[in-house]
Amino acid sequence: MSTIVIALGGNALQDQGSSPTAENQLAVVKKTATNIAGLARNNRLLIVHGNGPQVGRLVLQNEFASAITPAMPFDVCAAMSQGLIGYHLQQGMNEALANLGIPSSAVTLLTQVLVDENDKAFMHPSKPIGPFYSSEEAQCIMKEKGYVLKEDAGRGFRRVVPSPEPIKIIELDAIKLLLENGFIPICVGGGGIPVIKDNRDHLSGIAAVIDKDLAAERLAEDIDADTLLILTAVEQVCLNYQKPDQLNLSQVCAAEMERYIERGHFAPGSMLPKMQAALRFANSAPSRRAIITSLEMAIPALDGKAGTIITA
Amino acid sequence: MSTIVIALGGNALQDQGSSPTAENQLAVVKKTATNIAGLARNNRLLIVHGNGPQVGRLVLQNEFASAITPAMPFDVCAAMSQGLIGYHLQQGMNEALANLGIPSSAVTLLTQVLVDENDKAFMHPSKPIGPFYSSEEAQCIMKEKGYVLKEDAGRGFRRVVPSPEPIKIIELDAIKLLLENGFIPICVGGGGIPVIKDNRDHLSGIAAVIDKDLAAERLAEDIDADTLLILTAVEQVCLNYQKPDQLNLSQVCAAEMERYIERGHFAPGSMLPKMQAALRFANSAPSRRAIITSLEMAIPALDGKAGTIITA
Repeated sequence: MSTIVIALGGNALQDQGSSPTAENQLAVVKKTATNIAGLARNNRLLIVHGNGPQVGRLVLQNEFASAITPAMPFDVCAAMSQGLIGYHLQQGMNEALANLGIPSSAVTLLTQVLVDENDKAFMHPSKPIGPFYSSEEAQCIMKEKGYVLKEDAGRGFRRVVPSPEPIKIIELDAIKLLLENGFIPICVGGGGIPVIKDNRDHLSGIAAVIDKDLAAERLAEDIDADTLLILTAVEQVCLNYQKPDQLNLSQVCAAEMERYIERGHFAPGSMLPKMQAALRFANSAPSRRAIITSLEMAIPALDGKAGTIITA
Repeated sequence: MSTIVIALGGNALQDQGSSPTAENQLAVVKKTATNIAGLARNNRLLIVHGNGPQVGRLVLQNEFASAITPAMPFDVCAAMSQGLIGYHLQQGMNEALANLGIPSSAVTLLTQVLVDENDKAFMHPSKPIGPFYSSEEAQCIMKEKGYVLKEDAGRGFRRVVPSPEPIKIIELDAIKLLLENGFIPICVGGGGIPVIKDNRDHLSGIAAVIDKDLAAERLAEDIDADTLLILTAVEQVCLNYQKPDQLNLSQVCAAEMERYIERGHFAPGSMLPKMQAALRFANSAPSRRAIITSLEMAIPALDGKAGTIITA
């Protein structure tokens, strides 16, 4: 029996075209679950999900309503997003598993992930979250709250937070226990709630976003998974995307992928972290492979019939 | 080694007198944790918490910001509140456990609790949640959204939701597994996310609030706990509270407690559900006892030196 860490991207959780109501989100999640539940028949699964749009909306609500009730800080919003998304995902997964007659069940474990407060990412906050502000509002917020805001693609100013490396999954032992006893843990949601250690080894939350693919990779190594399955909007990774010489990648070795990365083939905020996560996992042991594909192709990709497969 | 289900009330999670910022809530939770962590030395613990004020604020934020992002329904707000409170509680507990040198750790498991859609509570929604509205607003909301709103103590109209009986804890097996392996599960938060079963046995959320003491009692029975420890603002249950003939109760048998309940000694929205939960647990097996006391007296109460102890 193989162990697979599945990393679900934004398209697995909501539909760009429709209003992000709970009903619409749950419908997308249920469809996602039907695409992956079959994998639980012959594999041990763990599910990591993104939370970008969801936590963005929570931050938006919190800021908007801050005159009537205090806005929760970013780490707490991350915890709430794990509740929101985990609840829908476990409902969707358990429905799909029951329909397939697979006697396993998905449960959601709140997960903190340790980061290093000296991570250089804290010097260069880069990940935009929450609402857009005018230049004047931005000045005011920077002064009042000490947040860093940056101009975002001509659409106004947004708060940016650091995106540090995931060092350690705090709840790893509990995740392992659930996995070994037949559960499908939904964990490390949104890359985990980012926490740092103080000088007495106590944890506290920090405003940051850990990349969910890198966090899923950390989990996959620590749980000794065989496969890191990154599900996104495209069926295969390509070079020269949408150009006449577009080249779809099927089987790639780590050294080759490293060259593509060096040559700047992948966009920083999008495919690059997925490639880095895939590469890191493939390089961590000869038996390990990373697969990048679409939700719909998850099952054929595991059989080597679709997707981009990265090995050492 | 005894198994104790601890039910934490509102005063364990926030301070009435200060603004409900994340910082203030975390400080209260950390203090709560120092009161109960010592119990983990010789007992197996499970922690159930309330969520009334927290979920009320989430509903408030969601309604207030509904023009900019869709308001999440009540079941999703309950899931988010488990994330919010569970995160703080596990951080507080783990800090307190580490300070005492107790090698156990608290983890938060998202928990759904099954209710019966034919529960008579659905005919009589009684539990107020969220913001206050004027009579005109209330009319409008009732018409538009189909919610039930009731006048609340002269302060305006509030939405009321049903408070059905907890029938089954969906994630019981995972909770049991975590407990048996040395973890302290934080679970069934806010009484659990209320779900109903459809005709194909699939779960879906419903707008309701399960009483957290009754849900903790359900958990205590199902996990075969020895003690249900309900922590609240008072050190002992009393009869004729704050009257000249006030009588503090130390050891009470179930039959006696039943008589007090029948005579209307306890207020419906306050002490009564705690008494019902305590009574139900004490009556479920001769070896079981329920204790009602304050946070500060939790440890002496377990030694029989404080609180109100209810046995069959």
